[in-house]
Amino acid sequence: MHILITGGAGFIGVRLARRLLADNHLTTVTGRHPITRLTLLDQAAATGVPEDPRVRIVAGNAADPDLVASLVADADVVYHLAAVVSVAAERDFDLGMSVNLHGTLALLEACRKTGRKPLFIKASSAAVYGGPLPAECGEETALFPQTSYGMQKVVGEYLVDDFSRKGFVDGRCLRLPTIVVRPGAPNMAASSFASSLVREPLMGKPFVCPVPPETPVCLLSVRRVVDSFVHAASLTPKDLGQSRAIQLPGLTMTVADMVGALAEVGGKAAVTRLTFSPNAEIVAIVKGWPVRFSTKRSGPLGFRADTNARQIIADFVADELDGEVAP
Amino acid sequence: MHILITGGAGFIGVRLARRLLADNHLTTVTGRHPITRLTLLDQAAATGVPEDPRVRIVAGNAADPDLVASLVADADVVYHLAAVVSVAAERDFDLGMSVNLHGTLALLEACRKTGRKPLFIKASSAAVYGGPLPAECGEETALFPQTSYGMQKVVGEYLVDDFSRKGFVDGRCLRLPTIVVRPGAPNMAASSFASSLVREPLMGKPFVCPVPPETPVCLLSVRRVVDSFVHAASLTPKDLGQSRAIQLPGLTMTVADMVGALAEVGGKAAVTRLTFSPNAEIVAIVKGWPVRFSTKRSGPLGFRADTNARQIIADFVADELDGEVAP
Repeated sequence: MHILITGGAGFIGVRLARRLLADNHLTTVTGRHPITRLTLLDQAAATGVPEDPRVRIVAGNAADPDLVASLVADADVVYHLAAVVSVAAERDFDLGMSVNLHGTLALLEACRKTGRKPLFIKASSAAVYGGPLPAECGEETALFPQTSYGMQKVVGEYLVDDFSRKGFVDGRCLRLPTIVVRPGAPNMAASSFASSLVREPLMGKPFVCPVPPETPVCLLSVRRVVDSFVHAASLTPKDLGQSRAIQLPGLTMTVADMVGALAEVGGKAAVTRLTFSPNAEIVAIVKGWPVRFSTKRSGPLGFRADTNARQIIADFVADELDGEVAP
Repeated sequence: MHILITGGAGFIGVRLARRLLADNHLTTVTGRHPITRLTLLDQAAATGVPEDPRVRIVAGNAADPDLVASLVADADVVYHLAAVVSVAAERDFDLGMSVNLHGTLALLEACRKTGRKPLFIKASSAAVYGGPLPAECGEETALFPQTSYGMQKVVGEYLVDDFSRKGFVDGRCLRLPTIVVRPGAPNMAASSFASSLVREPLMGKPFVCPVPPETPVCLLSVRRVVDSFVHAASLTPKDLGQSRAIQLPGLTMTVADMVGALAEVGGKAAVTRLTFSPNAEIVAIVKGWPVRFSTKRSGPLGFRADTNARQIIADFVADELDGEVAP
């Protein structure tokens, strides 16, 4: 089995690649398949992926139709994680449209042209929701995205639905809550703060949180999101029913709750490195996001949320910081 | 004021053009504007539009980016009615994508490039709904389109929403119920039967109805849909709120009720020209369509439904058949 991951140098892409290589197989509707090839496509260089003869790292734009067509030609599974993130897509409309909308479309068309109905698993986002929200958001919620990124994710979902209905791909779209704790430097995702406020202090660095402590968030750990992408491959079209979108479950809390968990794992020293200075642009985007997700669909489909923030942070320290926190 | 109508040779396009020429002005958020130019773009030749120095008929594809850019360059208002209809878009996926998705996108980009925020009024469709439906469908209904045409209409709505939010256009999308009575020959819209079963018998021709008499339908007359497109121009962004989509109201009845109204207007002779022979493809598409629409949004915005089927049919005879029905 040949698996292509777009956005393969991204933090989820790299960790999904490691997991797939370690598992050595992927279970899909047609059975348990040995992974013989894994292609990681990204504009950035993928680092942290083990040397492995099965792995091929390709530098390039996931919105380049010729490139994706050549990579998809013999792929059995496509994980489409490449995206221009929320703030970046809001600031540069053309860039967001190019990668998030036209890129997805080019990839779907390339899959269709193979005539082999590849499994197509796409990252969607809670940014699809917006406007007045119900108490819990989910697949039955009418979507009123309030950012270009959110619009592009909605369009991607509808494309995957229709390409699946037509038999061009076997698609599924996972709507991700805020994924924590993202390693590396802060990025242009509006949700970047949720990782930074844990990661930076644990690494001994100061961080200015751009949203106030009472801000509610809905979190899913890196471990669980990787589990979810692997699990999504095993679902059957019948499991999925009329639509291919699945809202992943999340753990709802406030930023203040996260700071409490940070103190438990990193001690008081970590917390003293945090200050708060609300940024109007980030606050405006984040306040439109839902903070509770229905598990009516994700639960029976076998997707699981995390149990508590302390565990999420402890796992981050184990997985990304070699078990070491700054004193 | 220069108004562009794409699909300007279509039955709604021509009747909207006639109405605008007769009105001689259009009221928008900035006031009452004399109509100085009216451009009708269509692949087919527009017939039935009065000779008028203000009118320019352009033969061409609404999905041709260079053509639409040149036409939009100095347009103040764009009515985007051009579309590949439901059955045609289902049979020829590429054609539907080209016109319904890429064409809409090209037109929106052309409007954006003018830098003048044109008023952009698009025909959407009740085909955006699908799957298990609530008792009444409307703007708060989650959308699960079950045709490529429906998907393309959904994507168009989200594009118009985001292009409006970004200030590139001032958009509004009208979700049309089944419009009756369409003049001319039956076409590839799955809803074509709803017009044909009235029109053909009134013109003395037999018609084989592809859905059974108990099929529910939700209708809006040609007069009312033209009223609605004119009225939509007058609404303000504040009237519209978070989304630019509006479900137009409709009149719910069965095909059998329509046949009863046909008998009232056309006599028993008309009804004897009708036979029923269900077509599985049409029945499958039509049975997924909603038949009751919420007026929670359209009502306060000033859109009106028809009052009864007899009047719709009588208006058709007056407007399209010179008041004459076949004996």
